[in-house]
Amino acid sequence: MARILITSGPTRQYLDPVRYLTNASSGRMGCALAEAILAAGHQPVVVSGPVEIDYPAQAEVVSVVTTEEMLDASRELFAECDGMIGVAAPCDYRPVEFAEHKIAKNGQTWHLPLVETPDVLAALGADKKPSQWLVAFALETQNGHERAMGKLRRKNANWIVLNGPEAICEQRTCLEVLDGEGAVLARLEGTKRETARALFELIETRLLQANGSDVDRVEV
Amino acid sequence: MARILITSGPTRQYLDPVRYLTNASSGRMGCALAEAILAAGHQPVVVSGPVEIDYPAQAEVVSVVTTEEMLDASRELFAECDGMIGVAAPCDYRPVEFAEHKIAKNGQTWHLPLVETPDVLAALGADKKPSQWLVAFALETQNGHERAMGKLRRKNANWIVLNGPEAICEQRTCLEVLDGEGAVLARLEGTKRETARALFELIETRLLQANGSDVDRVEV
Repeated sequence: MARILITSGPTRQYLDPVRYLTNASSGRMGCALAEAILAAGHQPVVVSGPVEIDYPAQAEVVSVVTTEEMLDASRELFAECDGMIGVAAPCDYRPVEFAEHKIAKNGQTWHLPLVETPDVLAALGADKKPSQWLVAFALETQNGHERAMGKLRRKNANWIVLNGPEAICEQRTCLEVLDGEGAVLARLEGTKRETARALFELIETRLLQANGSDVDRVEV
Repeated sequence: MARILITSGPTRQYLDPVRYLTNASSGRMGCALAEAILAAGHQPVVVSGPVEIDYPAQAEVVSVVTTEEMLDASRELFAECDGMIGVAAPCDYRPVEFAEHKIAKNGQTWHLPLVETPDVLAALGADKKPSQWLVAFALETQNGHERAMGKLRRKNANWIVLNGPEAICEQRTCLEVLDGEGAVLARLEGTKRETARALFELIETRLLQANGSDVDRVEV
């Protein structure tokens, strides 16, 4: 049985106790991947930002709010995992300052300086041991392949899964799986559950078994 | 039977197709108020930002994303309602510019200019006819009473309901109901369902019946 880390959902970067920057990631693909991993007899370990969905009861789930928390939790857990799938959409900017009390409106333009948050997958990719694998997701609204391959390299990922912005929060999805050379390994279309299952089958055959992690795989 | 408008949930103000500014309003208090209104034999009309909860099937529900959309929908519906409860937490700042494509990270500080969005309740309060009433909610992290009374005046509200930031997304809540003179009409504590029921009983006795809207009230 392999242990597989999934980062899932959005993260939030608060400006003050009420307002925050985020995105519409629902955690549904992370949940569908956890189900596919369980169905294949492996152990999913989910690090998730705030979502309204329920992950499978048999999954290990660590809840976080910010990108920094997601990185800290994932780094610790990845060390004990065979591989990971980064399907979270961590908020990639945070306000330079956090205001302890809710900022009152004053009729003026608010100039908000934002700085980049740490890149969770790039940090985990840098930690990756030769026996481990990493599959990243990329959401792009233009120049999808080119940008996705740039991400694959920066994150030291084995594969990158490309989807469009319509994937966020939708029940149906369309994914393209690219390997390290940019070759399209698969185009998967269907519900998140269907595409998650097909994607994990591919991962199991091509990455997990190739790395020998299936030695004590439990058939269910 | 009275028609009562409820604004509920958060709104979102997008920076680009993926990232947005928002808050953690869940829509649960709006949902609980719609249930209380139905239970009392009246018709709730809900204008809601993006939420994961389901409003009661008998409620009329209009879904919106941005604060501007919430204002437009509410203004049209309020004209045909006896009164309204503003429990939404509309995002009160928006980026000056919306980027059509996802903004790529470049390692630099992002100086994001934000401007205030329209004040939904102040606009509706300005439209309010003498026969109509308006109950606002205020979420404050400091100087609660003073700020709440400032809001009551700016929004031309009959009452303002004060709660702390812990109310957002929590199941239990603690509310203080202030009238136009700042007198505390009630302190309500319990689940959102319990406090919503108690709040609506107070509204029904003191605002709805005072304004004669219960003439054809249907007992259920």
